[in-house]
Amino acid sequence: MEYIARPTLLLDEAKCITNIRRMAHKARENGVLLRPHFKTHQSRDIGRFFQDFGVDSVTVSSVPMAQYFAAASWSNITIAFPVNLRELPGINQLAGKVRLNVLVDSAEVVKRLSQGLHHQAGVFIEIDTGGGRSGAPPANKAHLQGLISEIKKSPNLEFRGFLTHAGQTYEARGEQAILQIHTQSTALMAELKNYFSSENPIISTGDTPSCSLANEFGCTDEIRPGNFVFYDLTQHYIGSCALEDVAVAVACPVVAKYASRNELVICGGAIHLSKDFAVNSRGVKVFGRLALLDDDHWKALPEGNELISLSQEHGVARMEEKYIKLLSPGDLVCVIPAHSCLTVALHSQYQGLSGRQYDIMQR
Amino acid sequence: MEYIARPTLLLDEAKCITNIRRMAHKARENGVLLRPHFKTHQSRDIGRFFQDFGVDSVTVSSVPMAQYFAAASWSNITIAFPVNLRELPGINQLAGKVRLNVLVDSAEVVKRLSQGLHHQAGVFIEIDTGGGRSGAPPANKAHLQGLISEIKKSPNLEFRGFLTHAGQTYEARGEQAILQIHTQSTALMAELKNYFSSENPIISTGDTPSCSLANEFGCTDEIRPGNFVFYDLTQHYIGSCALEDVAVAVACPVVAKYASRNELVICGGAIHLSKDFAVNSRGVKVFGRLALLDDDHWKALPEGNELISLSQEHGVARMEEKYIKLLSPGDLVCVIPAHSCLTVALHSQYQGLSGRQYDIMQR
Repeated sequence: MEYIARPTLLLDEAKCITNIRRMAHKARENGVLLRPHFKTHQSRDIGRFFQDFGVDSVTVSSVPMAQYFAAASWSNITIAFPVNLRELPGINQLAGKVRLNVLVDSAEVVKRLSQGLHHQAGVFIEIDTGGGRSGAPPANKAHLQGLISEIKKSPNLEFRGFLTHAGQTYEARGEQAILQIHTQSTALMAELKNYFSSENPIISTGDTPSCSLANEFGCTDEIRPGNFVFYDLTQHYIGSCALEDVAVAVACPVVAKYASRNELVICGGAIHLSKDFAVNSRGVKVFGRLALLDDDHWKALPEGNELISLSQEHGVARMEEKYIKLLSPGDLVCVIPAHSCLTVALHSQYQGLSGRQYDIMQR
Repeated sequence: MEYIARPTLLLDEAKCITNIRRMAHKARENGVLLRPHFKTHQSRDIGRFFQDFGVDSVTVSSVPMAQYFAAASWSNITIAFPVNLRELPGINQLAGKVRLNVLVDSAEVVKRLSQGLHHQAGVFIEIDTGGGRSGAPPANKAHLQGLISEIKKSPNLEFRGFLTHAGQTYEARGEQAILQIHTQSTALMAELKNYFSSENPIISTGDTPSCSLANEFGCTDEIRPGNFVFYDLTQHYIGSCALEDVAVAVACPVVAKYASRNELVICGGAIHLSKDFAVNSRGVKVFGRLALLDDDHWKALPEGNELISLSQEHGVARMEEKYIKLLSPGDLVCVIPAHSCLTVALHSQYQGLSGRQYDIMQR
């Protein structure tokens, strides 16, 4: 890693492929389609890793991301973000090129979507099973029936089913709490599947915490986890993964050392890591766990060795004395990020531990 | 703004130029050099706005940013970030091209910097006047004397003076609290100027809160505020500016409306705004203040109309009923960002309200 001069996003390909293999295996075992969310890696190159496990359908979070993956020959794409009426030309173009699914929860949007499309698109109705962000309430069957009718009226829209993101798992800690949310969310979706059985709806669920911990997917037809491809410190504290499963880290040059307060300053700030934080088991907000490079692999240090503050380009790392004494200005230290999706979105490529580089979609 | 389809960074040029004019005037009145920090705008085009006010010396936060502005003909540049020994080739190249200043606080770094340079560079010793991030303690005169001696031993280094960033003003609220920090920090620097008077040190200070509120700069020779070029919601709550002074906002399409909970979902998330937040006067964490577009200018709504949560691409906006009823999916709403520097760093250009576009340095 001698060539690294600036904060550099590292990818441990072996861990990443193991994470994909494990999820693909779980999906197969449970008879559900794995439609992974590609917003985490945002990479054509890493997308190819999934093809080795038979994945041919993907989820993205924006029209430009759908265009990027469509250009890389992915032909079955769900944009798991409420239809943005200002992007109808792009949506229409995609619908003419790939098997596209979009998300709605209001009749007004369905009407305007239908008017704006000249190609066929699939439509999922988004359901809010407790996340409280977007989606229609599952209890209001009249509203859902109205939406389905509106979709079916359109010559260009095809009702596909119901989709939910139980994002409230991100507020939970531990297997029991997550599985409880998963069970509740799946039960609400099962009720819809039953109530609207004549429409034969696809049930699409699946956040990373639930998909990592659950072994029972009930009514679910497809799962859409994304973060699992890399995991991160937040997922570790939620209980979705071991710290050793995390497949990305940011290598940062040490630029100053303050031994009296057991702190380093690194070249690595909010523009390299994002300001998202995890809360460690002592209740402390941390922007990443520190790791040391050993034989070109990173090795996570114990809790208490963390990035404790971030400004635009500076990071302040607090470390135990026995570790800080190993480091001086000019050395590299790694940061296992609090939130891998946002960290990746700040970089222009991955540096694989194998020596290969991997692209990242640029906005 | 009919052409806006995705989150778009807007620049109100008139406000921006007024902010620059006000700070340039204050610097002139106080006989201090304005060496603005360009990490906020990161734009060659906006850099030109400063030239109309006689600014010819700038501050940046990284070697690539120095290279970017050097390529745009800025010839007097301070990199206000601890020297990253892994970037010595780039630093050396810059030193051969422009009048360059760098920052140190340890003898080890001075030695290795000296070995790595073949061109002349100015050196500031960074002083920690209470920010607790980087810099040497002002009380340890022996350490500072040792650093100066080490710098003077080098044929390629020239001791310029002492530099501090009193970043603790960002934790303060209100004029009195900020001016107290400013006074304390300036007093510590004055003592150094006096103690090391035989070295004739330049005293460089100046965070945006202090520079916006102070009218007395004591021993200071140059100020380096950056954020003032745009300001933001955080600066408004700190007390550095009026909300009407904020010169950037992100126009975001509304994609869903949940009138029962007075919330909108917008296409505008952490990758467009950053996860940095401000704390409003009610103690609530907010990711931005909402504003409505009126005749192609944004008009800030009162407190209580804010972005209350952000995921990767979704923003949840809570609004009063009288405002939310004005908006529907497909409309635009503006977000006055919590932290303009980090928001700008996520975009590739500014859309000026005049219709012009302005570049942003890409990493």
